[in-house]
Amino acid sequence: MEHPLLVYNTLTRSKQVFEPLNPPHVGMYVCGPTVYGDAHLGHARPAITFDLIFRYLKHLGYKVRYVRNITDVGHLEDDADEGEDKIAKKARLEQVEPMEVVQYFTDRYHSNMQQLNVLSPSIEPRASGHIIEQAGMIDDILKSGMAYVSNGSVYFDVEKYNQQYHYGKLSGRVLEDLMSNTRTLEGQDEKRNPFDFALWKKAQPEHIMRWPSRWSDGFPGWHLECSAMSARYLGNTFDIHGGGMDLLFPHHESEIAQSMAAHGSEPAKYWLHNNMITINGQKMGKSLGNFITLNDFFSGDHTSLTQAYSPMTIRFFILQAHYRSTLDFSNEALQAAEKGLDRLLTAWNKIPRLKPSKQSTLEVEDLEKKCYAALNDDFNSPMVIAHLFEAVRWINAINDGKEQLTANHLELLQGLFNRFAGEILGLIPAETADSAEGLSDKLLEILISLRQQARASKNFAASDLIRDSLKNIGILLRDTKNGVEWEIEED
Amino acid sequence: MEHPLLVYNTLTRSKQVFEPLNPPHVGMYVCGPTVYGDAHLGHARPAITFDLIFRYLKHLGYKVRYVRNITDVGHLEDDADEGEDKIAKKARLEQVEPMEVVQYFTDRYHSNMQQLNVLSPSIEPRASGHIIEQAGMIDDILKSGMAYVSNGSVYFDVEKYNQQYHYGKLSGRVLEDLMSNTRTLEGQDEKRNPFDFALWKKAQPEHIMRWPSRWSDGFPGWHLECSAMSARYLGNTFDIHGGGMDLLFPHHESEIAQSMAAHGSEPAKYWLHNNMITINGQKMGKSLGNFITLNDFFSGDHTSLTQAYSPMTIRFFILQAHYRSTLDFSNEALQAAEKGLDRLLTAWNKIPRLKPSKQSTLEVEDLEKKCYAALNDDFNSPMVIAHLFEAVRWINAINDGKEQLTANHLELLQGLFNRFAGEILGLIPAETADSAEGLSDKLLEILISLRQQARASKNFAASDLIRDSLKNIGILLRDTKNGVEWEIEED
Repeated sequence: MEHPLLVYNTLTRSKQVFEPLNPPHVGMYVCGPTVYGDAHLGHARPAITFDLIFRYLKHLGYKVRYVRNITDVGHLEDDADEGEDKIAKKARLEQVEPMEVVQYFTDRYHSNMQQLNVLSPSIEPRASGHIIEQAGMIDDILKSGMAYVSNGSVYFDVEKYNQQYHYGKLSGRVLEDLMSNTRTLEGQDEKRNPFDFALWKKAQPEHIMRWPSRWSDGFPGWHLECSAMSARYLGNTFDIHGGGMDLLFPHHESEIAQSMAAHGSEPAKYWLHNNMITINGQKMGKSLGNFITLNDFFSGDHTSLTQAYSPMTIRFFILQAHYRSTLDFSNEALQAAEKGLDRLLTAWNKIPRLKPSKQSTLEVEDLEKKCYAALNDDFNSPMVIAHLFEAVRWINAINDGKEQLTANHLELLQGLFNRFAGEILGLIPAETADSAEGLSDKLLEILISLRQQARASKNFAASDLIRDSLKNIGILLRDTKNGVEWEIEED
Repeated sequence: MEHPLLVYNTLTRSKQVFEPLNPPHVGMYVCGPTVYGDAHLGHARPAITFDLIFRYLKHLGYKVRYVRNITDVGHLEDDADEGEDKIAKKARLEQVEPMEVVQYFTDRYHSNMQQLNVLSPSIEPRASGHIIEQAGMIDDILKSGMAYVSNGSVYFDVEKYNQQYHYGKLSGRVLEDLMSNTRTLEGQDEKRNPFDFALWKKAQPEHIMRWPSRWSDGFPGWHLECSAMSARYLGNTFDIHGGGMDLLFPHHESEIAQSMAAHGSEPAKYWLHNNMITINGQKMGKSLGNFITLNDFFSGDHTSLTQAYSPMTIRFFILQAHYRSTLDFSNEALQAAEKGLDRLLTAWNKIPRLKPSKQSTLEVEDLEKKCYAALNDDFNSPMVIAHLFEAVRWINAINDGKEQLTANHLELLQGLFNRFAGEILGLIPAETADSAEGLSDKLLEILISLRQQARASKNFAASDLIRDSLKNIGILLRDTKNGVEWEIEED
């Protein structure tokens, strides 16, 4: 390959050549959802970002073990280890068992991921299913002297850790600043310092999500699950750790500290973070109350939405921005994405009907190289999409007889679309490809052929009737010198 | 309700009135799949049987917590606690981490369940996620004196248990017979008696699915997971325990023994068992090597299949037999099911187009009562289907003007179909109802209307052309006095 794959590593704040620890194997861990509510647009972004990375690494021939967890216990309302467990609270409000909440929202998350054409990870471990591994890691951290037991709970001793290592190396924060800025909260007198974080929390009597342990009947801290599960399935040091930028601190910073204290090694070689989705410049988040769920987008049933948007429009909208840029939500931007995706797929549909020429006037191989170069530059999906739109212009120009490609090059172009728009960007779901041969197409062919026969026998009343009937249901026919073309009308 | 719900309880070998322990709540536990291969027809039967029961209990107004587990550890090749773990073996052969095998086949199982229109259970716990609960239950059984530690493994002491309770009460087996019939296998010298079963197995050095415990680094026995997880999510005694009849002994028998020993109470009030699917009279099973996977059925790609069968055909085939009867697989039986389901859905599609009369000549309310009576008689789905076919005959007779129903009664009939064929038997997936408004239907309407106009203007060449074009793609038009009807041609 001409260009090596470069990835932006948050840890070094630079683009680095991607060199996996144990090629051709790649281990990738990405923080998944806390399943106490429906996934919103802010959940779609990391899922689609790391789906792109998963797909591209596999395309390059790596054997990727992709682990994305389900947080079903231990994520408290307040990041400072206080407040109720998010899932336990939802379960209390709904008067059900917490695991029913977990199952319900996990099923809905999976369904959303399927709609967005996000591939299943190789392993999807649940925090509640790995209490033993988490307790084992607490033992190791206690042995290293960087945690302490307090009233049945166990806390990570950030100050002690920082004497030997650097708490803040990922997020760039400085412990002294943290110390002076941290409020002392009520009920935190168990901690030596307010920025210490819980590895194990003793459960209050009413807390039903609890497990026995050496320290108390309780539950693990939120940061710990990712450290324990990534080590369990990918080893103490693996290649890529990903997640949203909002998880950088304290979650990922604390993961590094836990792994260093327990194993004496950094958990991941490359840390990749997707940026946030904003609404009017503010982060979209469940805790901020300004979120729009994916199901809202698909149904259009939300006061901030002027219409429904298909899952593929959402996917395209997200991939149109580089994953490290912020992405601002607006109806206008989504409508533009909808039109853009439609143009892309319409052109893709046209390729099989293009007439081959004896000569080529366009450089297909060159375009392919550009697409790879874009992906190798830290997964630059907007650049790939720009190149695909160049191909769209080519397709239309060939269709109009203004440019030419040989049969061989047309096949290459088809392959380029299938590979980049389909396999890697995931914008062409398998069903679309199948349904192109479906019943609707066959019926439409009959109608178009009837209309042609009516025109041939100068029965224009009949041919107009067919055209108008189709227009009524949103299908536009266009007569070109290459025959009749049709497209679904844009609103 | 006129008739109370009767369920056949394997424990009492009789039909009993269903009286839940804590109405309106119902707790139901059903043994799910061991995820080391694709689901076959033998897996579809318990899934669909208990889906019917889940749907009907919810229809009756019960709040059902339905727990169906995923066995991802501890199920050894040999029921007598020997041989390799089924999942670990598959992982070794495929050179992947066992949890990758689990994730892959769990995803495919879920996808099959969705195709079969089987609702998600309320909670779907995994054995590997409940090691602590299983270890806790072993402690309780050891305390009761009905288990013993041997070389790092823990075994249930069946003989000792049988002195106080009755090992064999569910399956009707007699311990003395078991004792004389059980082969002594090599490597079983850890056990006091060959019919003792493992609660905890010490892991061999090469066994990678292992957890620390008080007894050894090892893994739980297969029978234990269901006891521990049902108690965790449904309490020590719950309403319904279900599964295939092949699980009756030793799995369910051992579950009863474990619960009695640990909690001093029976786990479930009602034990429900579906019968087996047979091929030429022999049970279909993965271990027997005569299984046909669900994906094979859906694709038709198997030497024993003469064609592909849709998921709904499989569902209908299974519901056409009572769950306690054996069901023999054959292509002829499946083809008959395909035709039957088609007749049912064709009639259902006709209802909105039936003309209401001033009088009714048929007793719709009576048919509804019969459907409830059938379901209340131990979920007699074949009887419900027979009643629905009575309704099919009515619909055709009304269509032919030979019988009459008022608008009110037509609405009742529509409701009866929606409720029994749709909501309870699950034979009408939500998408079918939607796609009736889909693009294909609109295109077909245009074609039918064009044909009517051609006939009206005596242009029979044009009208025949439309009819023949549709016939070519498998759509048959039929002129009736109520207008044009269409149906998808049967092969």
